[in-house]
Amino acid sequence: MATKINNSKNQSARETLTNKDFYFFSKEKTESPNTNEPKYILGGKGYSLVQMTEMGLPVPQGFVISIQTCEYYYKNDRQFPADFTEQVKQYLQKIEESTGKKFGDPQNPLLLSVRSGSAVSMPGMMDTILNLGLNKETLQGLIAKSGNDRFAWDNYRRFIQMFGDVVMGVEHAKFMGILDSAKEEFGVSLDVDLTADNIKIIVDRYLDLYKTDTGKEFPHDPFEQLMLSIEAVFKSWNNPRAISYRRINKVPAKISGTAVTVQAMVFGNMGENSATGVAFTRNPSTGAKEYYGEYLVNAQGEDVVAGIRTPKHLDDMAKEMPEIYEQVKEIFAKLEMHYKDMVDLEFTIEEGILYMLQSRVGKRTGKAAVKIAVDMFNEKLIDKDTAIMRVDPNALNQLLHPAIDPKAQKELIAKGLPASPGASTGQIVFTAEDAVIWANQGKKVILVRMETSPEDIEGMNVAQGILTARGGMTSHAAVVARGMGKCCVSGCSDIAVNEEKKSLHVGKSIDLVEGDWITLDGSNGEVYRGKIDTVEPTLEGEFGILMQWADDVRKLKVRTNADTPKDATVARKFGAEGIGLCRTEHMFFQEDRIFAVREMILSDTKEERVKALKKIEKMQQSDFENIFRQMHDLPVTVRLLDPPLHEFLPHTDEEMQDLAKAMEVDFEVLKERKESLAEFNPMLGFRGCRLGMVYPEITEMQTRAIINAAIVVAKEGILVKPEIEIPVTSNYRELEVLNQVIKDIADPVLQQAKVDINATKELKLLEYTIGTMIELPRACVTADKFAQYSQFFSFGTNDLTQTTYGYSRDDAGKFIGKYIELGVYMDDPFQVIDQEGIGVLMEMAVKKGREVNPEMEIGICGEHGGEPKSVEFCHKIGLNYVSCSPYRVPVARLAAAQAVIREKLEK
Amino acid sequence: MATKINNSKNQSARETLTNKDFYFFSKEKTESPNTNEPKYILGGKGYSLVQMTEMGLPVPQGFVISIQTCEYYYKNDRQFPADFTEQVKQYLQKIEESTGKKFGDPQNPLLLSVRSGSAVSMPGMMDTILNLGLNKETLQGLIAKSGNDRFAWDNYRRFIQMFGDVVMGVEHAKFMGILDSAKEEFGVSLDVDLTADNIKIIVDRYLDLYKTDTGKEFPHDPFEQLMLSIEAVFKSWNNPRAISYRRINKVPAKISGTAVTVQAMVFGNMGENSATGVAFTRNPSTGAKEYYGEYLVNAQGEDVVAGIRTPKHLDDMAKEMPEIYEQVKEIFAKLEMHYKDMVDLEFTIEEGILYMLQSRVGKRTGKAAVKIAVDMFNEKLIDKDTAIMRVDPNALNQLLHPAIDPKAQKELIAKGLPASPGASTGQIVFTAEDAVIWANQGKKVILVRMETSPEDIEGMNVAQGILTARGGMTSHAAVVARGMGKCCVSGCSDIAVNEEKKSLHVGKSIDLVEGDWITLDGSNGEVYRGKIDTVEPTLEGEFGILMQWADDVRKLKVRTNADTPKDATVARKFGAEGIGLCRTEHMFFQEDRIFAVREMILSDTKEERVKALKKIEKMQQSDFENIFRQMHDLPVTVRLLDPPLHEFLPHTDEEMQDLAKAMEVDFEVLKERKESLAEFNPMLGFRGCRLGMVYPEITEMQTRAIINAAIVVAKEGILVKPEIEIPVTSNYRELEVLNQVIKDIADPVLQQAKVDINATKELKLLEYTIGTMIELPRACVTADKFAQYSQFFSFGTNDLTQTTYGYSRDDAGKFIGKYIELGVYMDDPFQVIDQEGIGVLMEMAVKKGREVNPEMEIGICGEHGGEPKSVEFCHKIGLNYVSCSPYRVPVARLAAAQAVIREKLEK
Repeated sequence: MATKINNSKNQSARETLTNKDFYFFSKEKTESPNTNEPKYILGGKGYSLVQMTEMGLPVPQGFVISIQTCEYYYKNDRQFPADFTEQVKQYLQKIEESTGKKFGDPQNPLLLSVRSGSAVSMPGMMDTILNLGLNKETLQGLIAKSGNDRFAWDNYRRFIQMFGDVVMGVEHAKFMGILDSAKEEFGVSLDVDLTADNIKIIVDRYLDLYKTDTGKEFPHDPFEQLMLSIEAVFKSWNNPRAISYRRINKVPAKISGTAVTVQAMVFGNMGENSATGVAFTRNPSTGAKEYYGEYLVNAQGEDVVAGIRTPKHLDDMAKEMPEIYEQVKEIFAKLEMHYKDMVDLEFTIEEGILYMLQSRVGKRTGKAAVKIAVDMFNEKLIDKDTAIMRVDPNALNQLLHPAIDPKAQKELIAKGLPASPGASTGQIVFTAEDAVIWANQGKKVILVRMETSPEDIEGMNVAQGILTARGGMTSHAAVVARGMGKCCVSGCSDIAVNEEKKSLHVGKSIDLVEGDWITLDGSNGEVYRGKIDTVEPTLEGEFGILMQWADDVRKLKVRTNADTPKDATVARKFGAEGIGLCRTEHMFFQEDRIFAVREMILSDTKEERVKALKKIEKMQQSDFENIFRQMHDLPVTVRLLDPPLHEFLPHTDEEMQDLAKAMEVDFEVLKERKESLAEFNPMLGFRGCRLGMVYPEITEMQTRAIINAAIVVAKEGILVKPEIEIPVTSNYRELEVLNQVIKDIADPVLQQAKVDINATKELKLLEYTIGTMIELPRACVTADKFAQYSQFFSFGTNDLTQTTYGYSRDDAGKFIGKYIELGVYMDDPFQVIDQEGIGVLMEMAVKKGREVNPEMEIGICGEHGGEPKSVEFCHKIGLNYVSCSPYRVPVARLAAAQAVIREKLEK
Repeated sequence: MATKINNSKNQSARETLTNKDFYFFSKEKTESPNTNEPKYILGGKGYSLVQMTEMGLPVPQGFVISIQTCEYYYKNDRQFPADFTEQVKQYLQKIEESTGKKFGDPQNPLLLSVRSGSAVSMPGMMDTILNLGLNKETLQGLIAKSGNDRFAWDNYRRFIQMFGDVVMGVEHAKFMGILDSAKEEFGVSLDVDLTADNIKIIVDRYLDLYKTDTGKEFPHDPFEQLMLSIEAVFKSWNNPRAISYRRINKVPAKISGTAVTVQAMVFGNMGENSATGVAFTRNPSTGAKEYYGEYLVNAQGEDVVAGIRTPKHLDDMAKEMPEIYEQVKEIFAKLEMHYKDMVDLEFTIEEGILYMLQSRVGKRTGKAAVKIAVDMFNEKLIDKDTAIMRVDPNALNQLLHPAIDPKAQKELIAKGLPASPGASTGQIVFTAEDAVIWANQGKKVILVRMETSPEDIEGMNVAQGILTARGGMTSHAAVVARGMGKCCVSGCSDIAVNEEKKSLHVGKSIDLVEGDWITLDGSNGEVYRGKIDTVEPTLEGEFGILMQWADDVRKLKVRTNADTPKDATVARKFGAEGIGLCRTEHMFFQEDRIFAVREMILSDTKEERVKALKKIEKMQQSDFENIFRQMHDLPVTVRLLDPPLHEFLPHTDEEMQDLAKAMEVDFEVLKERKESLAEFNPMLGFRGCRLGMVYPEITEMQTRAIINAAIVVAKEGILVKPEIEIPVTSNYRELEVLNQVIKDIADPVLQQAKVDINATKELKLLEYTIGTMIELPRACVTADKFAQYSQFFSFGTNDLTQTTYGYSRDDAGKFIGKYIELGVYMDDPFQVIDQEGIGVLMEMAVKKGREVNPEMEIGICGEHGGEPKSVEFCHKIGLNYVSCSPYRVPVARLAAAQAVIREKLEK
């Protein structure tokens, strides 16, 4: 029955077909849809089976029911197409002919697996039924053919359990309850230790449970079993966890159903020469070119994924099943050549014969993605553009985020599997629900579970990291966490988790409860007690190479948002080409100057204000000097004071009293002044350039500080190009007025400095420019007028999003959850630029601005500047640069390169 | 020397000239600029003199220096053109030739007046110098020629005073001080009683003052006097009160200078057969076709305008100077035929001979404007379009605003002249500065002055009304107040004003101080103590006719914003064609329901909320029924709940405690719930459709109330067309969701009702539509998507302005004053649609919306809907209707008609 691996000459004959609901595959023949995107008809899994069959790999016979059939089912009020039953029968017959077995035959029964499979991988989200076709009679045939009483009965037990759970909705826990109490009753601890007689008793109890819960007898007719199972798979497309998964993973709407694969069963649980396994052609965690996989002897597929028993590593196979191991290696090579990528596959060994059950491009960590991309280019498997496109820019976060400080004092309490790299620290919670609740309160949590299941998705999504006591490197927790780019330690059997009592124990001495802090290192599987400091990652090897490739390709410059010399240093290390946003107000908050700032704000007269500003000016100048030095020769955009003044004021009466004393002002008077500054809508209040319009002395002070700092640093021989940025502008006349205020201060000082600098033979030039934030809708609409008074534009997409949508991020909490639930937003507009709305305004601003000033430099400094989709949009509309937080700089560099390549591909 | 009025055959010869700085006019010859808009070269006054000369009216010879010369002066750093002095001399010679007198000639001296005059009338804003050319020698000539010692000396005195004040900046009050103390010294109370000898002494004192203050001798050379005076007039264009006037009156920027008229003097102060006067061809207060004017015997022009002596009425002239009176009447008729409008003119009678010194289209009250427009159409002077264009829509406010309730208890304390109609009530202030300060504090003030002067403009602008003790119907106070459409009582000699002590007295018993309330009736000149109720105006006669004409022409429908049946009634009376905005939340605040509303808001569960909503539903339904009945057969747009919920909650702990008791909830719990509703930026918070998205039960309740009310009223045989409006939408998916919520409630109820209604033989149809407010920038940008889910759009330009500009009206107070001062805004964008910014978004929304749904009904319901410029813009971009407050409905109707006519004219 098994097929030796064929060479490519020996592939099965392909028949290409259009508009069919069913597609058959066997070593004799495959039916392929006539399309460029077969995945959108057969689903990922179905297509991989057809492909592998065509490649001559050993795949059990079967057929795929198309995704379009599932769509039909949903569009027609959950009805199958007219000839559906007839077709199932026809295709069943093809399997029977190919296998020589008969479905429902008590002598030589054909057993089937029924699996879901959509166009994108949704691991564990939808349902699978194995061992289908068993009933009291066919069971006897299976016993006879296999000569293995226990094997056959265990298959029957599994089938009842899966069918009951998946198809009929009998609670999984109830089956597990029966199984667990039976194991106790029979004195065994592992499933595999149950005898055939034990299992017979369990089967009876399962059948009773089934009848009690569903009110029906377990279906005897295998064809009824099959039809119900196919429908159950269709239905599983819309179960809540699948819907939730698609939302979290932003599965596009065109992926609108699942295919169903009906396939002849092969058994990994026929004894010690049988097994089932999962493998990757390279290490999905590190990207190393090494085989990576796990298998469980005498088990069925779901035993591995569910993480119930800890499996063996693929290396062990080399000793235990050397022939199979050679076959696996050969298949790995063939699949990588075919996919031109790292492949993730599932296999089963039935009595020493290997079968492939699935293959697909494997998920990987950011680190692995980078290494594999660079390696595959070096191996000449892919070209450079493909290598660049292979890495999800967001995945770089994993590489870039801090790791545990090796010098930190730390108390190692346990060690598990390094399931997903990175370090994270947080407070323990024990259920997904708690994780969501705590996270909503702004807390950082680590989700600790015995093992995770698809029901935990929401909790995993909000957690900093995940720790499980059971499960391997390919367990649910590990796969999902890697997909999310989230730190995970799995299979940490050192810890005992009591989910009910919300506590965990390590040995006898360590006892942690909900709310206690722990730290995970997903790169080595270590678990520490308490909060631990982290350190910067090293940025070398393949990462450096890939970034260099990206830099060669991209057209967008990448700057950083940095308010301190420290930020500036980090950002330069990550490749920042300047500062796109230096928020001066962050300097205002520092301990040593906030007092003077408050004095300035609460001054009653211009004279008092000017006096307080004098104190601030010196400190600001020295800050600017340090930033200019750090950014050596690169441009620095300094934004003038932006937030409403009351944000700087003390909140408590005590602090106000101290201030009153120091200012020699009556407390009550000062308090009244404070109250007069309060605003109904601070977002829409007295802030940004409005401050400078009313108190030009503030703008004057800041201009002096910037220009004088620039002069000091320029005299050191460094090219300084300060860009003075005016925030929150809504009318070009604001720019007209403030340009004059700035020039009146800057020009005379600068003129004198140029003379001085030339006199001391320092030849670096010193120039400054004046520009504006574009962060209000009116600025976009009237950008042509703005351009007459701006040397540069910088999009402030945070405020632009708030005003264009008409809601403030601080207040959106009351409804945003419901909006996401209702599908109003595909992406959070504060994370990804809303191209449909905000994007239209941005394009308008670029077009109008450049009409007047074709050379205008335009950038973006909102948080969107480091988000890949937004970076691509910025490239498309012709910005000169994006500016983002230091850690996001490499993300933006890669995203900018991908934008160029995607544009090429689309042409 | 005087000219009898010529018939049209006898006009002076016209020479048309291009690009000249100087234009001469005399009965022999006029020089006219070669342009369609001579006013923009000669100024209003200069042009009127040229015109009248050409018509053969008696006008003293003179020449005009063009506005362009003034522009040149300002553009060239206050330098005259190269040949300027030469040209002045040339043109002076022309006057000399025509008059037979010589400038500076001690025997037969030519004296001149030098006056300003821009393209728009700016009464009293700029400067005038009379009697120019006098010095010790020419004075003797004047004495000799006139044979009137006192007359000549008084002219000299006046000249020194005017020249000193206007040209050299010697304080006017200092001259007045000398004059007043001299009058005391010589025991006279009126200027006219001063003898020549008295005046000689005063002249000496004036000359001393001049020397002390300017450090120079008074210029002896008449030509030097002339050149300095011409320059002073140029300079007066940019004096602070002129700048202020132009800003308040929104004088367009293209009006960029003043012309100067230099004219031979004629003297109204040559004795009892001389006079000076001001007249209107019709009554500028009521519009009645009657002569209306005042003159002062033995006076110079400025004596009338300054309101120092109370003048005689024109009717008196019929008896006193019957021949002149006939001449005046003839001239009136001629001028009305020429201007095709009511004319305002200045004249002087020199020893029984009449001279015209100015003519222009006269300012008038709204009431007069309407009557004159309708009368002139009936007189066949103008066509209907012209009649419609003749009335400033804003001026209708005067007609529409409430008058003093005739039934109100009132205490009449004084009576003055009915200088500007309407009634107003407010707190007394005694200086323009105080008026501004009090008004800024939100207080309503009546500005009480001895007499007003151009320095008071700002205070008059913010006051509710103006009361002066001195001055006639054409005094500064009266003219300016009528222009502003503001109630004014002038010349109220019953009251004694003490500006210093900030008090006023009527007789001995009535004593009012700053802050006391008074009420003015500008239509009859009565002054009452205290606050007095007002009543609605009657809308009949010419007003009704003009409105009918406007209705025939306009394309825009005019609806009203009305939240109560009472509002709806008023609005229908004013011609509203439906309700464009019915704010349901205003109903929520009513005493009898606010409690249930609060219960609803503070509910913890949906069940509690639904229970509270049930109570509100009945009340809302009955409100809607009454409104539907009032608007009988007209459409009513009902906006769903809009404001943030916390706006409905009590502010005090006491009220919260009552609520807690009634709801049987712990006070602390309730308080916590209240606090959780607080927002950082309520404008941008949980409001509008966001409420319905999260609590669909609110939308359901409101839908039920609307539909059930519609059914009740429809059963009464009234066509009800409710338009359900969804507010604060930023994403079309909000509409998608809420449309469904509304339809799910409305459709079944309505279906049943239609059956019922047909059964009872009521044949009126009953339909409803669903639409949205367009009040956020994103709604405009994505209006094509919105249009797929909207049957109508309604622009909420208040919120659209706030979000597009990024500032809230509540918070803008801190900077808006400075912005206006700096000229950032031409118009307040909350009053007049900002076409440059908001307008672009509106146009985009209309275009995108109609692309998808060409039949879409689009309106506006922001406060801009009743502002004429904004209404014109709405017409231009193709809206179907504007909706405004009831009192603004006629304003909008007229503005909409004018928009159509203006469009025709521009084609």
